Amino acid sequence: MLLSPLVLITTVLAAVASAADTRHPDLLPLSQHDAAARNPAEQSARYWVDEAQAGIKSRLQLNKIEGKARNIVMFLGDGMSVPTLAAARTLLGQREGRTGEESQLSFEAFPSVGLSKTYCVNQQIPDSACTATAYLCGVKGNYGTIGVTAAVPRRDCVASLDNSTHVASIAEWALQDGRDVGIVTTTRITHASPAGAYAKVADRNWENDNSIVQDRQDPLLCRDIAHQLIHMYPGNQFKVILGGGRREFLPNTIRDEENTRGRRTDERNLIEEWQSLRASQNVSYNYVWNREQLMNISESLPEYLLGLFEGSHMQYHLEADTTTEPTLTELTEIAIRSLSRNEKGFFLFVESGRIDHGHHDNYAHLALDETIQLHAAVQRATEMLSEDDSLVVVTADHAHVMTINGYSPRGSSIIGRSNQQGSDGVPYMTVAYANGPGARGARVDVTADENFGDLRWRTHAEVPRSSETHGADDVAVFARGPHHALFTGLYEQSRIPHLMAYAACIGPGLHYCNAATSFSGLP
Amino acid sequence: MLLSPLVLITTVLAAVASAADTRHPDLLPLSQHDAAARNPAEQSARYWVDEAQAGIKSRLQLNKIEGKARNIVMFLGDGMSVPTLAAARTLLGQREGRTGEESQLSFEAFPSVGLSKTYCVNQQIPDSACTATAYLCGVKGNYGTIGVTAAVPRRDCVASLDNSTHVASIAEWALQDGRDVGIVTTTRITHASPAGAYAKVADRNWENDNSIVQDRQDPLLCRDIAHQLIHMYPGNQFKVILGGGRREFLPNTIRDEENTRGRRTDERNLIEEWQSLRASQNVSYNYVWNREQLMNISESLPEYLLGLFEGSHMQYHLEADTTTEPTLTELTEIAIRSLSRNEKGFFLFVESGRIDHGHHDNYAHLALDETIQLHAAVQRATEMLSEDDSLVVVTADHAHVMTINGYSPRGSSIIGRSNQQGSDGVPYMTVAYANGPGARGARVDVTADENFGDLRWRTHAEVPRSSETHGADDVAVFARGPHHALFTGLYEQSRIPHLMAYAACIGPGLHYCNAATSFSGLP
Repeated sequence: MLLSPLVLITTVLAAVASAADTRHPDLLPLSQHDAAARNPAEQSARYWVDEAQAGIKSRLQLNKIEGKARNIVMFLGDGMSVPTLAAARTLLGQREGRTGEESQLSFEAFPSVGLSKTYCVNQQIPDSACTATAYLCGVKGNYGTIGVTAAVPRRDCVASLDNSTHVASIAEWALQDGRDVGIVTTTRITHASPAGAYAKVADRNWENDNSIVQDRQDPLLCRDIAHQLIHMYPGNQFKVILGGGRREFLPNTIRDEENTRGRRTDERNLIEEWQSLRASQNVSYNYVWNREQLMNISESLPEYLLGLFEGSHMQYHLEADTTTEPTLTELTEIAIRSLSRNEKGFFLFVESGRIDHGHHDNYAHLALDETIQLHAAVQRATEMLSEDDSLVVVTADHAHVMTINGYSPRGSSIIGRSNQQGSDGVPYMTVAYANGPGARGARVDVTADENFGDLRWRTHAEVPRSSETHGADDVAVFARGPHHALFTGLYEQSRIPHLMAYAACIGPGLHYCNAATSFSGLP
Repeated sequence: MLLSPLVLITTVLAAVASAADTRHPDLLPLSQHDAAARNPAEQSARYWVDEAQAGIKSRLQLNKIEGKARNIVMFLGDGMSVPTLAAARTLLGQREGRTGEESQLSFEAFPSVGLSKTYCVNQQIPDSACTATAYLCGVKGNYGTIGVTAAVPRRDCVASLDNSTHVASIAEWALQDGRDVGIVTTTRITHASPAGAYAKVADRNWENDNSIVQDRQDPLLCRDIAHQLIHMYPGNQFKVILGGGRREFLPNTIRDEENTRGRRTDERNLIEEWQSLRASQNVSYNYVWNREQLMNISESLPEYLLGLFEGSHMQYHLEADTTTEPTLTELTEIAIRSLSRNEKGFFLFVESGRIDHGHHDNYAHLALDETIQLHAAVQRATEMLSEDDSLVVVTADHAHVMTINGYSPRGSSIIGRSNQQGSDGVPYMTVAYANGPGARGARVDVTADENFGDLRWRTHAEVPRSSETHGADDVAVFARGPHHALFTGLYEQSRIPHLMAYAACIGPGLHYCNAATSFSGLP
């Protein structure tokens, strides 16, 4: 396959990039087992004792942050299961020329870690819709629904019209306190995860009016997700909206800037409507559809910013056309700079949404790289925001069924073959899936099929499915900033926005600002 | 297969046990999808908001425990991966007649949770030996080695003779402070995990002298693990030793009480030697080999207690002969009662070791039940020990490659079929493995093969292997008691004993007792 021009990710790749190599520098070959990368100091007891003692000392020196969180940034790795973390950090370390396993994603250094239970009310293994309701609205709902309680069955438009089924998101709580809100994603901006911040909808697929019509429901009664974002509260108040998904906002009679046909059948162009709305409000605004435009306004950011960089999802970072696609880190930086102008603070939601897509397609390398993109974006955010007044939470919505199989030597390429084989004499990949399109009917011989260096080589799987499934295991929660210690423990995913609201003193529940006197003890 | 007589686990099973049913009560059939078990309150926003707010309130009311940990109990779920937790808690809840996913293992309620990185110095995917060195001695070593640094290659007897390669375990730190030590496991007491508390050995398989001879090494130069436990420091100081593995202590010329032949070729009977040693010290002691003997002495416990309940590993709880096999909960209770007589406190290591074996054999049901046995043992310990002076840590040594596949409805039997199928039209089990003996060459039709109710039905897997492999993903750490907050975060597994030592003021590193004045801030 053809790869896009080099993207120089300076923090990671300078050391390995070669001018003569036309492949993406992240794709330079890794030796199967690079014993030379091993650190001889690890052979001593002193190395590990010092590592542990330094960790304890550093933990004891953590400042207890007593104030309220003015800003909240919630990062979501869609489908970033616990096994994904270990595999991605190993890939990160291997790109840096080390063995990899000892590496650390930026957010893995956060002082508090918890585990979140992701099931939804009617499903043992959840999706990105009901989980978005949990981690953004604080309530669990039904599979496939967003922003509504489990009193709304999926696709039941009428049930969702009852306002008592609607649940407010933390974005609304922030707005009601006078703070600004932004959403950033690498998927369609109308996709399930970001929609959790603004939509109340009985079906996650109702991203445009025509999808509602196809389900024989009335799109004037139940509004589609794109319409809700542009015209309804709270989406119509968002200062920053950055992602993909132009097609959901455009009529099917026109094609967008990159030739993707719109999907709306109500003849409305919601991108133009958004601009007209801002013009009528006499506020500064910009609509941008590619990276160059975004960079051009980055020094004088408008009050309202809408960026839609693809007809559907943004491209995978490793395959991206870098003239049209900003990185998640760039989007995050611009969003934080925009929102930081509000002295009362902000709520920002940032999703690395295509970890999930990589897994669904058994594209392990892409899933891990999108996790590394999240790591880089979080790193930038923590450089920009003080832990004294900014709470940063990083988590996932649900797991996947990717495993890391034994027993390769230290430093073995995490996206390569295991040095072990099955009892049929056929080696397996270190990273594999329980199910998905990588299932080939018979065991794939990865010694004969050397194509696993290709980004779109599907890692093998057992059960054939057009799309690999989610998993039901818990996902990790990482927190830094005011009241981070509340985020440890193992809890329902729906607790997360309540914890953020507590630290920020927004929303209807317990607040640090008024509860601090009535409760003793931790944190 | 024949099942042993009913074991009435009163806390769990009373509701479902039927006098007429001769199967183990934990095996009563679960409906595939029990919609009636669903809690209608979950349809309201109020339910989830109340749940979250109560969680925050309870967390804020946690007492900050300022003192030092007099006692430490470390529970290990061997191979208890993060996915194992969700599956086991679901099974627990389903045995109680609920949907299951909302259930909680006892230690999941602990106030602090962390994640631990399990790789060892020379392996990406570790084993129970190098990880035992990490979580008991605070140093990472090589795969297959115990209690020695990575300067010792596996099976290198000579290298392991260098004392500078030996690393002390937290059991030694406790003894040096005048506290008592006990070890409890459901595996052979000479198996890798418990051996981490007392052995320094270049190969985990050197459980008896003959295994060293077979590897062409000198068993008088490098002592076997059983010998180290009985005759060498610190094992010879342990007050409580409870587990399986009689064969490692007995000559191959005799058979033990249950007709298992000994494995030693040095003609020594180490069980008798242990008793002679205690007699010569003029201390009270008992050796027991079955549950009845153990219960008979439980009201007047000796100063030294050795219980070896099987020739090899103890039986799986669901298959156990309850006249000969005590439960892990019973062993834990007796160990705590024994050790609590030392006013200076104690260190106790308790392993549910056969979670790992269940996984290796793709016996998902057995692996999950052994996890529930750990839950019950931890529950008993927390009932017996105050969080004011007793630190309880629950963790795993390494992960496995079991996944929980989408997308069954809420309350579906976690050990049953998914309601979904592959694109080949064949359903799959909700819980499956990436590899192992459950691989059948072709997809197993679980609608035709109804035997999955059998405990030893192997859940399907992709890659055929005689033994399923470990995984490389992080495992969870749960902590309760003094300084539990130190255990959150994501860290090297080798940090764990240093954290415990800090809280208990033992060992050579930083201590709470002398560091509290020199460090500010958390915890």
